Amino acid sequence: MKEEKTGKVISRMVINRLPKYYRILGDLMGRGVVRISSRELADYMNGTASQIRQDLNCFGGFGQQGYGYNVETLHGEIGQILGVGVLTPAILVGAGNLGHTIANQVDLRTRGFRLVGAFDSDPEKVGQKLVGLSVRDISELEAFCAEHHPRAAVVCIPGPSAEELSARLIACGIVGFWNFSAFDFAKRYPGVAAVNVHLGDSVMTLSYLVKNRKEK
Amino acid sequence: MKEEKTGKVISRMVINRLPKYYRILGDLMGRGVVRISSRELADYMNGTASQIRQDLNCFGGFGQQGYGYNVETLHGEIGQILGVGVLTPAILVGAGNLGHTIANQVDLRTRGFRLVGAFDSDPEKVGQKLVGLSVRDISELEAFCAEHHPRAAVVCIPGPSAEELSARLIACGIVGFWNFSAFDFAKRYPGVAAVNVHLGDSVMTLSYLVKNRKEK
Repeated sequence: MKEEKTGKVISRMVINRLPKYYRILGDLMGRGVVRISSRELADYMNGTASQIRQDLNCFGGFGQQGYGYNVETLHGEIGQILGVGVLTPAILVGAGNLGHTIANQVDLRTRGFRLVGAFDSDPEKVGQKLVGLSVRDISELEAFCAEHHPRAAVVCIPGPSAEELSARLIACGIVGFWNFSAFDFAKRYPGVAAVNVHLGDSVMTLSYLVKNRKEK
Repeated sequence: MKEEKTGKVISRMVINRLPKYYRILGDLMGRGVVRISSRELADYMNGTASQIRQDLNCFGGFGQQGYGYNVETLHGEIGQILGVGVLTPAILVGAGNLGHTIANQVDLRTRGFRLVGAFDSDPEKVGQKLVGLSVRDISELEAFCAEHHPRAAVVCIPGPSAEELSARLIACGIVGFWNFSAFDFAKRYPGVAAVNVHLGDSVMTLSYLVKNRKEK
């Protein structure tokens, strides 16, 4: 904890919670809320006031005793920590239904990334539009990356294809993976940053919760 | 911890990890692995052997000193805890691109749910096929639920629409929400089970990780 307060080591669990803080504070700003206590914020976060204070202390605090947090200031500070204002160029791999849905659902530009290219190996998909980008053939990957220097990839292909493509992506300078496949990039290539979205895992958690729910 | 060992209280964090155990053990089974040590399993889980033992002890342990875990047995036990063999009837709300993608990407039947109906309010979507189901008009929700008794809903509509529809879903007996909207069901209706998938949050975590990555 001491180290965390100096900003050196922040646990992945705290980092995983930051986007939720950012989202909730953004909602509050949209509703004209100017300040919030750690207790109120805890209620939105489904946590305790003490956890909220501990989380935010990792970054040097921002609250004032007896006042709480200024919503806009805290939103701005957390946004800065998350790096949402600096747009890392990213490519999307796999322009199927999943790729289109992800690209359309999630506004990357407000979340720290700028989509500069989309790729697929299926000749039928090449040339199609994906959020305004023309889908390129995967054979163009190296030439494109040499010119545009993307640093992150949104991976919307199945695990075996992702594994097959992974060495090329790494060689192209990709260091961050938003990964919807079953392949574990960070395990194979230590040092890269990866966030894995396992949709199937989350619905199994719901299965547990539904089946172990206490009837009211 | 003591309580957890008796199976009374299991922390949400452990529950959130169970699907990953289940997935990894399933992969290992597929590759013919018969037994695994907690250290090897920890490596797959990106955790420590001690954490693995602690997690699995919440459910009474299953390992044997000096042998480790039998992969198939542990897979079966965790599957049973998650309730994947008991299929809770579920409906999907919102048959747009997101709804179709989710329904096609994730095999609910191997994860504790059986999709029995799909709904949309858009007349153009009504009657279309979604993983073999004919999309129904949302006006039929109550009559359908009275007949088929779904207990869970996959929510693929925007937050404001989800909020508007929420009281009807609750009144229809839905107690579990796999929620892709920004509306917080569990906050409004305490006692329901909800797993929220905020795709935007996970890519912001990647933004942090990419921007704070130490160059090797």
